[in-house]
Amino acid sequence: MPTPATLQALRAFVAERDWDQFHSPENLAKSISIEAAELLELYQWSQEPDRERVEEELADVLTYCIHLANRLGVDIDEIILSKLEKTRAKYPAELAKGRMTKYTDLQA
Amino acid sequence: MPTPATLQALRAFVAERDWDQFHSPENLAKSISIEAAELLELYQWSQEPDRERVEEELADVLTYCIHLANRLGVDIDEIILSKLEKTRAKYPAELAKGRMTKYTDLQA
Amino acid sequence: MPTPATLQALRAFVAERDWDQFHSPENLAKSISIEAAELLELYQWSQEPDRERVEEELADVLTYCIHLANRLGVDIDEIILSKLEKTRAKYPAELAKGRMTKYTDLQA
Amino acid sequence: MPTPATLQALRAFVAERDWDQFHSPENLAKSISIEAAELLELYQWSQEPDRERVEEELADVLTYCIHLANRLGVDIDEIILSKLEKTRAKYPAELAKGRMTKYTDLQA
Repeated sequence: MPTPATLQALRAFVAERDWDQFHSPENLAKSISIEAAELLELYQWSQEPDRERVEEELADVLTYCIHLANRLGVDIDEIILSKLEKTRAKYPAELAKGRMTKYTDLQA
Repeated sequence: MPTPATLQALRAFVAERDWDQFHSPENLAKSISIEAAELLELYQWSQEPDRERVEEELADVLTYCIHLANRLGVDIDEIILSKLEKTRAKYPAELAKGRMTKYTDLQA
Repeated sequence: MPTPATLQALRAFVAERDWDQFHSPENLAKSISIEAAELLELYQWSQEPDRERVEEELADVLTYCIHLANRLGVDIDEIILSKLEKTRAKYPAELAKGRMTKYTDLQA
Repeated sequence: MPTPATLQALRAFVAERDWDQFHSPENLAKSISIEAAELLELYQWSQEPDRERVEEELADVLTYCIHLANRLGVDIDEIILSKLEKTRAKYPAELAKGRMTKYTDLQA
């Protein structure tokens, strides 16, 4: 994730514009938060926002996440699956089933 | 993106916990913003935060993005590439090269 | 806003810890977003979160806002009232009454 | 904080537009995050953004914070000072002086 073709397209886009110089990890982390809020803005007063705009804003968040993963040299599937294992341990299915209780408050 | 195996692992995780009921698009949009801020927090006072924590928080943002894409039934590569075409049109390489000027302020 | 006593207490807190060096406008802007997301997190899966925690997280957002206003040397009441005038012009009461339509979409 | 006049102006603005119905605590929490990200966006690629825009975005964050405080019926100075006491206890001046170490990592 993403496919090699998507990854290549994003890298080429940045290289053609000479934008690597702006893509420090810190700037990318800010950018992810900024784009995430633009996605959230669609849900500010509505629960059924325009579908196309949702897809565009979600794409923006993902794009900056991929730029950051590139910059850090990490594989996206690997970090997702590695974090999933930790979350799985914190939220055992039998305790967490059907409720959103924070893991620190989950009791047998 | 992600690989079918990652996608399947995330779906199974949610299904085993009966959490689909909480994963409204609005709740997922909130979650993306919340996780994005946890990533940003690592850069709050530092430009070189702990690498493992960055990977974990980035994974959290991506995980909720994938949950939202699943919920909306959209293909992640497709929305990224579709948005990239629009961004490409707004930021022609010859005008945008080497500067982060907002497209509304880019002039030939 | 805040009262001179609150303002003085916040300034003394920062001065005693020699933290002005960290309070660049950019770092404070990041901090406001981070604290805003901690407030939002209380509403991630619930619409009735713990009252005391809401007050604490709201206080954190306000505290960083005041630090930023201090740093910029601006008066909080002034900037709020100045912005309110602009918002008032964008959202005339007779057009905006009872609906959250973006001003660019408000039509007579 | 704010002054009674500012508070009154904000309340009148909302009342004239019949917007109280939209100002649930959850919607206001989302709005605070959204406006905080608009402030952050000014610092996305720059450390010296346009001053007037910074003031406007900071005013927006503060405005929604005040709306939330109003909705919850809390006094802003009280919650700020109450939270400051807790932060003071977590970050004793002699340990925290000149460094931004998280309180859980501060050692005597």
